[in-house]
Amino acid sequence: MDYSAILNRINTDITPLLGQGKVASYIPALACANPHDFAMSLQLINGESYHIGLSNQTFSIQSISKVFMYEMALSLFEESIFGRVNVEPSGNPFNSLIQLEYENGIPRNPFINPGAIVIADMLTSHFGKDAIPSILGFIQKCADDRCISMNESIAESEHTSGYRNYALANLMKSFGNIVNDVESVLNTYFHCCSISAHTAQLARATVHLAHRGTDPLTSIVHLSSEHTKRINALMLTCGHYDASGEFAYRIGLPGKSGVGGGIIAIVPNVMSIAVYSPALNHHGNSLVGTKALELFTRYSGHTVF
Amino acid sequence: MDYSAILNRINTDITPLLGQGKVASYIPALACANPHDFAMSLQLINGESYHIGLSNQTFSIQSISKVFMYEMALSLFEESIFGRVNVEPSGNPFNSLIQLEYENGIPRNPFINPGAIVIADMLTSHFGKDAIPSILGFIQKCADDRCISMNESIAESEHTSGYRNYALANLMKSFGNIVNDVESVLNTYFHCCSISAHTAQLARATVHLAHRGTDPLTSIVHLSSEHTKRINALMLTCGHYDASGEFAYRIGLPGKSGVGGGIIAIVPNVMSIAVYSPALNHHGNSLVGTKALELFTRYSGHTVF
Amino acid sequence: MDYSAILNRINTDITPLLGQGKVASYIPALACANPHDFAMSLQLINGESYHIGLSNQTFSIQSISKVFMYEMALSLFEESIFGRVNVEPSGNPFNSLIQLEYENGIPRNPFINPGAIVIADMLTSHFGKDAIPSILGFIQKCADDRCISMNESIAESEHTSGYRNYALANLMKSFGNIVNDVESVLNTYFHCCSISAHTAQLARATVHLAHRGTDPLTSIVHLSSEHTKRINALMLTCGHYDASGEFAYRIGLPGKSGVGGGIIAIVPNVMSIAVYSPALNHHGNSLVGTKALELFTRYSGHTVF
Amino acid sequence: MDYSAILNRINTDITPLLGQGKVASYIPALACANPHDFAMSLQLINGESYHIGLSNQTFSIQSISKVFMYEMALSLFEESIFGRVNVEPSGNPFNSLIQLEYENGIPRNPFINPGAIVIADMLTSHFGKDAIPSILGFIQKCADDRCISMNESIAESEHTSGYRNYALANLMKSFGNIVNDVESVLNTYFHCCSISAHTAQLARATVHLAHRGTDPLTSIVHLSSEHTKRINALMLTCGHYDASGEFAYRIGLPGKSGVGGGIIAIVPNVMSIAVYSPALNHHGNSLVGTKALELFTRYSGHTVF
Repeated sequence: MDYSAILNRINTDITPLLGQGKVASYIPALACANPHDFAMSLQLINGESYHIGLSNQTFSIQSISKVFMYEMALSLFEESIFGRVNVEPSGNPFNSLIQLEYENGIPRNPFINPGAIVIADMLTSHFGKDAIPSILGFIQKCADDRCISMNESIAESEHTSGYRNYALANLMKSFGNIVNDVESVLNTYFHCCSISAHTAQLARATVHLAHRGTDPLTSIVHLSSEHTKRINALMLTCGHYDASGEFAYRIGLPGKSGVGGGIIAIVPNVMSIAVYSPALNHHGNSLVGTKALELFTRYSGHTVF
Repeated sequence: MDYSAILNRINTDITPLLGQGKVASYIPALACANPHDFAMSLQLINGESYHIGLSNQTFSIQSISKVFMYEMALSLFEESIFGRVNVEPSGNPFNSLIQLEYENGIPRNPFINPGAIVIADMLTSHFGKDAIPSILGFIQKCADDRCISMNESIAESEHTSGYRNYALANLMKSFGNIVNDVESVLNTYFHCCSISAHTAQLARATVHLAHRGTDPLTSIVHLSSEHTKRINALMLTCGHYDASGEFAYRIGLPGKSGVGGGIIAIVPNVMSIAVYSPALNHHGNSLVGTKALELFTRYSGHTVF
Repeated sequence: MDYSAILNRINTDITPLLGQGKVASYIPALACANPHDFAMSLQLINGESYHIGLSNQTFSIQSISKVFMYEMALSLFEESIFGRVNVEPSGNPFNSLIQLEYENGIPRNPFINPGAIVIADMLTSHFGKDAIPSILGFIQKCADDRCISMNESIAESEHTSGYRNYALANLMKSFGNIVNDVESVLNTYFHCCSISAHTAQLARATVHLAHRGTDPLTSIVHLSSEHTKRINALMLTCGHYDASGEFAYRIGLPGKSGVGGGIIAIVPNVMSIAVYSPALNHHGNSLVGTKALELFTRYSGHTVF
Repeated sequence: MDYSAILNRINTDITPLLGQGKVASYIPALACANPHDFAMSLQLINGESYHIGLSNQTFSIQSISKVFMYEMALSLFEESIFGRVNVEPSGNPFNSLIQLEYENGIPRNPFINPGAIVIADMLTSHFGKDAIPSILGFIQKCADDRCISMNESIAESEHTSGYRNYALANLMKSFGNIVNDVESVLNTYFHCCSISAHTAQLARATVHLAHRGTDPLTSIVHLSSEHTKRINALMLTCGHYDASGEFAYRIGLPGKSGVGGGIIAIVPNVMSIAVYSPALNHHGNSLVGTKALELFTRYSGHTVF
């Protein structure tokens, strides 16, 4: 398939949409993003890669980091996670406390904020002071690229504006579902949100999810085949907050979005995809990024269904 | 792949579980089912089929009929459905009124009761008095089998015990999301629930969903390729009520369960599957049926992820 | 105290407000009310009565009938009511299904629709076919006036537009908290809503609630002293839907409003009050009626606190 | 009336109940209370006072402090409070986050935790570093007793176990309804909870609420007459969390309970009452204290209704 042509066609189609939507503004570093930016990268398991737009311009991956955090947790803790974080779609915004209170502090899934905070707690317990560098190291290893970094000023901003995340963590702590002190757990969590990468790096970092957990270029096993299937299932049912059903319905690929404007998607056995455009739709997902992926599945015919 | 051997292996594995779980008891016809019954059928798109257990014993397909109803509605009404029924997972039991009230009478998806009741309303508007035979006719055509029938005594029982469905329909009517009178709409809905079939028929009736909407044996087009993808996406995210995430996570195939103990599942481009065992787990899905599908994906390696 | 002067002063004060708010429009008979109408009646336990405005013009008392229904039920069934209807404020609109589903079909109190529907069910069980005339008879007896009647055309209208009440009744029936068939129960309920009276009759009919249950003019005991105290407590905490707290806070008297624009209020040991003005505030209570009662407590100093 | 005799009769009646219920155990200082302790004090506006049991044994007044906090806020900020804290019953437990999220961070009333936290925020803004001594000073002045004090070890315990209060405060801060930093606000709040007093002091401190805001013994005006009426109305509709309706129904007096086992109640124009017994019923209110007040209204006939 001529993926270069497909990317060009997508680029043409989405150009009129650039600038629609709203850039996240709750922290300064995100608010400064240019709503006209766009990038898309394909990393095939056969080693080929295709890029269009600003594919070497880093951005804040935000919630996309939740995928890597859960990969690590799944390898380390396996089934024992399930008493603390469930795997069901939430049907609610990413940071709602309502469901969490009704369900006694057990988050619906690891891709909404409270779920990722519990995962951060588990990784903090396991790695202690090394939790943050360990998570960063895992992503760097997946991307085969030591240049991926955390952005301290973003981590700091999340801290000072993250009242709702403090509310979530304290509520879960009141139910006994946070072991470490809230400050340490959120420190880990906020640093994960602050990871910066560009689409070329992100596509590279997730290609193992299209290849049963093994990096097709280096042959390093990042995740078991069984766990890879589960990560993909979770991305399909829970990857886009309260628009997960619509993403599955329209695009039909496992994916995960971040409020920074990035989205990753997986075509099992074929490739990983990363797309970036910072202006968001009303569900908090990249407006142009979602559209680009919808066009991609239409033009390529790739879908899991 | 030796599917006969796989079915035999599954049969052996699930035998000790038969009798666990609880047969639905809210209407007499369901309560009479034998909790030790088991059947499983595979219908490959290459025409082969494999069966084990009581694959010619009919049972009440109940909510599995919601798939066929939505197929018809999607073909007839296309995007105009979306103002009346959404495509998001619900995260709640199949008949909850809470979400429905918060969301102004617009059901989350067509595979929970209120969503299917709205679909029944749309089909009732379109077909008038012929709604019930038209829906039955569509399933018969999909199965290439005129013997599939509705069970009047079950339809009648649903009627006299269906207070919650009356509550759902009246609540939606108060929001203006039911056009016809409640009695007519529920008459259509209850008759759909009463359809009886066996696993061989059900697998046959759904094989077009594994083949982009076209019956691979008769070449009849039941659904467009685009709509087929969407039905499968919906089954993956919403097919099992508040256990949909877990089904995707553990089994990784689009599927739909019914309270009568049946489950269908789709392996895109390969086959459809129907399984039956009437005793249910606490989510209201067939306990042994769910297990059999989990074993099937493990032994065959078939998954969309 | 010069109650005539107080009524005149209130009349002057509220005149500029007449026409503000919105007349209930869900049934034709209510929609036809003149938003500029106003009436207020005081019935003292010493036999004196004071009136201003259209105090002989009948209107639909709607939910005010819930007070009389609960009086009857309390006398007949006493403490055994509590398994079926609670006595807590609801904090939700009068016809919400959400709380009812969470609380397994047990309504919060008898002054919201579902609570009154359960009371209608209990009275239907007790009186059979005579339920409707028995309730009307009780109100006539309390008012010492056989002219108070039900309005069949309003009862009929409630019937054909009452989808939400059907939803509530069916939901409670699904929980086993409605014994009779839904149609009969709602027939009783809708007829109670259709009772017509004017403020002079309403003040007269409720004066026993200011006099420990005994009619101060006829000496007929309508309710025990203990039950009277409880009715007044319920009116104070639950009499105005989700504005009950504000009514207690600003007015400080037990009261009950109806969507027809009437409100009754009790000054224990002194008098009963009825006020009417059909235009409603956003909580569904008479806008001018609420204001008139607030002025009354200010000018008279009467309050339970 | 012979109040001594009434107290003796109550004491006899409640003796068999002592030990039933459960002492609050979430902080050590409360857990150590003796479930057999009982005390009751009446402070009449004519200056007489009556006591029975351990009426000079101090206990943690906990949420009863919310009454004094709101009195101060009402005097200082008057109607401007209403944009930040409502006056409606909540129908939910004292520390639920669900309603708070649905209602955008505006608490239902000042007598549930989030409401009192907002009041603490307002008092912290007004008094700065003097907030804590100012509140204590107000209570001492009301009681005409400088010996009432805060218990630092309880305040500290609240701090280290108060995750849910941190969750509430952070959630409201995310909605912009907390102005000061969360730590300072909760410091004020936890110190208020830690106030210790005995029933004689508490009855004395609240007698102005039975006397239109003016201390009947010293003639000091603590609160306007209008505001006193509103405090009493609020206690009646919201003073006992999700058992407020039942308290009004069975006892019929404005009152406020604390998790330490104390309850205050007001008989307008007659007296204030304080009762203490640390074992709680399932609503979190003193089991014996509630019973004692019910008996008091029965034996004395005092009720607002």
